[in-house]
Amino acid sequence: MDLKNFFQPKSIAVIGSSKHPRKIGNIIFRNFIDLRYEGKIFAVNPNAEEILGQKTYPSVKDIKDNIDLAIITTPAQIVYPLLEECAAKKIQNIIIISSGFSEVGNVAEEEKLRDFIKKKKLNVVGVNCLGIYDSYSNLDTLFTPRERMDRPKKGSLSLICQSGAIGAIMIDIMAQENYGLRRFVSYGNATGLDESDFIDFLGKDDQTKAICLYIEGLRNGKKFLEICKKVCKKKPIVAIKAGITTKGTEAVKSHTGTLAGSAEVYKGILKQANVLRAESLEELFNYARLIERGKSPPGNKIQIITNGGGVGVLAVDELSKRGLELAELDKQTIATLKKEMPPIVNIGNPLDLVGDANDARFKFAIDKVLEDKNVDILLIILLPQTPTITINIIKILKEIYEKSTKPICLVVPGGSFANTIKRELEEYIPSFSSPSGAATAIKGLLDYNNQIAKSKKRKKAKIIQK
Amino acid sequence: MDLKNFFQPKSIAVIGSSKHPRKIGNIIFRNFIDLRYEGKIFAVNPNAEEILGQKTYPSVKDIKDNIDLAIITTPAQIVYPLLEECAAKKIQNIIIISSGFSEVGNVAEEEKLRDFIKKKKLNVVGVNCLGIYDSYSNLDTLFTPRERMDRPKKGSLSLICQSGAIGAIMIDIMAQENYGLRRFVSYGNATGLDESDFIDFLGKDDQTKAICLYIEGLRNGKKFLEICKKVCKKKPIVAIKAGITTKGTEAVKSHTGTLAGSAEVYKGILKQANVLRAESLEELFNYARLIERGKSPPGNKIQIITNGGGVGVLAVDELSKRGLELAELDKQTIATLKKEMPPIVNIGNPLDLVGDANDARFKFAIDKVLEDKNVDILLIILLPQTPTITINIIKILKEIYEKSTKPICLVVPGGSFANTIKRELEEYIPSFSSPSGAATAIKGLLDYNNQIAKSKKRKKAKIIQK
Repeated sequence: MDLKNFFQPKSIAVIGSSKHPRKIGNIIFRNFIDLRYEGKIFAVNPNAEEILGQKTYPSVKDIKDNIDLAIITTPAQIVYPLLEECAAKKIQNIIIISSGFSEVGNVAEEEKLRDFIKKKKLNVVGVNCLGIYDSYSNLDTLFTPRERMDRPKKGSLSLICQSGAIGAIMIDIMAQENYGLRRFVSYGNATGLDESDFIDFLGKDDQTKAICLYIEGLRNGKKFLEICKKVCKKKPIVAIKAGITTKGTEAVKSHTGTLAGSAEVYKGILKQANVLRAESLEELFNYARLIERGKSPPGNKIQIITNGGGVGVLAVDELSKRGLELAELDKQTIATLKKEMPPIVNIGNPLDLVGDANDARFKFAIDKVLEDKNVDILLIILLPQTPTITINIIKILKEIYEKSTKPICLVVPGGSFANTIKRELEEYIPSFSSPSGAATAIKGLLDYNNQIAKSKKRKKAKIIQK
Repeated sequence: MDLKNFFQPKSIAVIGSSKHPRKIGNIIFRNFIDLRYEGKIFAVNPNAEEILGQKTYPSVKDIKDNIDLAIITTPAQIVYPLLEECAAKKIQNIIIISSGFSEVGNVAEEEKLRDFIKKKKLNVVGVNCLGIYDSYSNLDTLFTPRERMDRPKKGSLSLICQSGAIGAIMIDIMAQENYGLRRFVSYGNATGLDESDFIDFLGKDDQTKAICLYIEGLRNGKKFLEICKKVCKKKPIVAIKAGITTKGTEAVKSHTGTLAGSAEVYKGILKQANVLRAESLEELFNYARLIERGKSPPGNKIQIITNGGGVGVLAVDELSKRGLELAELDKQTIATLKKEMPPIVNIGNPLDLVGDANDARFKFAIDKVLEDKNVDILLIILLPQTPTITINIIKILKEIYEKSTKPICLVVPGGSFANTIKRELEEYIPSFSSPSGAATAIKGLLDYNNQIAKSKKRKKAKIIQK
């Protein structure tokens, strides 16, 4: 199914565009105007002559141009006739933002829509959703105002999110942390398209390097399983399944009316589908951010380099707790470090460059460690609070990262200065605020790689059998 | 032991004060000048006439005034004779910032200091430490410059920290998140005073409502156990023990030379001492921040109120995972809410006020829920991204919190706008960025209360036996 017109349509009709600045139909229409969306935008509203200086049309049927995408923002009770008009106008792709359907007990109205969508073979996102955000095309149907919720920079993570509220928070966190976003879709009640349709589509999208997913339930487990298995061979999928405890399952039922199924069944499906399961939003992004950079480790041995001994110890605990393995530096590396470093430097794992380490000591140590064949993954913990570190470290780390074939991740713990450094470095290197975040990321990377290796093995075995 | 002169001395000598702005002896001396410390400050340096416009003294012996506190910042090799001079001048309290002792293998020099300290009955913080920060008196011996590391506002959490690096990060995080700090001490190698001495002292400090601890090892487990048991009856102690895995234990040994002991032994000691154990810095603060507010729940039933259904479900999962219990609203509360709220509001647990909730809907629902006898603890999850919430919500929540005898905690997830709201509300209500943080906090509160209840029971049983 080609869903690209949801993300980069050439012509758009906003049905229910409004003059009132707090109305959803105003905010969404304004997004297109403010962001100077490259494409034709039509405002549809039978009760207004112009909105934000643009001519309005009483109905989509009055627009002469072809419409690639319609966005319906009206109250629930008039959605059905508007959808009929869209179908009559041969609009294939429709986002229905409107809420007030099965999630509030109005099941009959939603079923009526569902039948019509099926009959007319329409592609519909919604009902009861935030819609789409594409950081490349600037398509933005989010009705959360920008002064309340930031938008992330361009990047290669894509988000698929059942809940609008969770979607808003995810986008907001991504912007705040300087994570790069490719595409976002909140599909709400899945009256038309569901998570699997978008996993399939974004699986084929070259700009998407990893898919993050939030689901409360699945309408079609078999379809989900098949599509995820296929997509996971090419790129990782990380998912939060909300309602993973008995009480949580009950809460899901009352939230979206979805039959959430038992927690154990869902854990099984996700595992079988090769989807990495995260338990919180923090964990979701931590899992995805290292894998999506695409550096594959030659093995599973991790070396820690830091200028803070205590944080180094905490990092060892975090890695060990997850069953991850520490590297043992080669004799040659140890000899070189001993020769070139001041005697107070603690050569081991962690390699503790101690509190007075400067940029040059970091650079020398990292270079040597990356050359070491015993090291597969590098974890750098940088404490920029000490006055011997300068902001030149950003450039140094960037250059090291670009040259390295081995995965590197960075921890910059602390307050406002540390966060500024971390946000800037996130541009180049997956950067975390705590050892536990980085350990989660490394675990995710190794789990994904194991999974890929296993599936290749199985494929090979099958070929040999034939 | 009275250690108050480490925190609010009337006269201070900075031994090793320096003219060079990047030297530790300059940064520390400058802290006193810049913060206009209320007390006499003397710069000691035999090779300078004046530092930062202040007269210098060749030795502490040349100062006529009594000195309540000396701070030694010189290289390791001259610390011993300087300590002798302090003793000769009858200075009781000394902070030795200097490093280069047992942590780099220079065990003999440190033992020499240790013997002298014992013999002269001196109170010594250090060696190899960051020293003291007191947000009330403005005493600040931290050599991490303020442009690199923020300082927290006044508050009631006190920190005791073996590692200087971890101490710096903790302070930096507290400032960033707007957590209030009472007193901080980094005691490094514990050549003189150790964690137990400060736990004892801060246990008696009325302004300290909770103690956070970072330890790598204990010199005297028995002393620690006795003091913690006593202090924990009055206020909670939350601790991170670094090196809680086998590999981590090895890393501790190489970091501070402390015999870290087996992880299991330490877990046992902390449990016996009634200390809550955290596994990360995030968890440490999350555990401490709700308890320290001092609101005691009448029972263990938790009610969630939110304007984001999905986050409500995640919160249920987080509570359930920790074995925490959800409240069931009383029939009367349900009837009142049904009557007054729009029909789309989902009355249950979570109580989902849905996406278009405004300030007034929040206020009404919270008031009713707090009156409900079935509710012991309230967890509010506020999504301020939606345009129907105004910044007036800050005032509303503040007033509700002040009136309530039941514990309340708040989650404000998201990006920069959400963080601003969260930081402001942290002033009044323990505020978290994710459901998992709040769930940890509630778990900590209930664990602490159970512990207090048990120890009261034991005491009563003993009295009856007598």
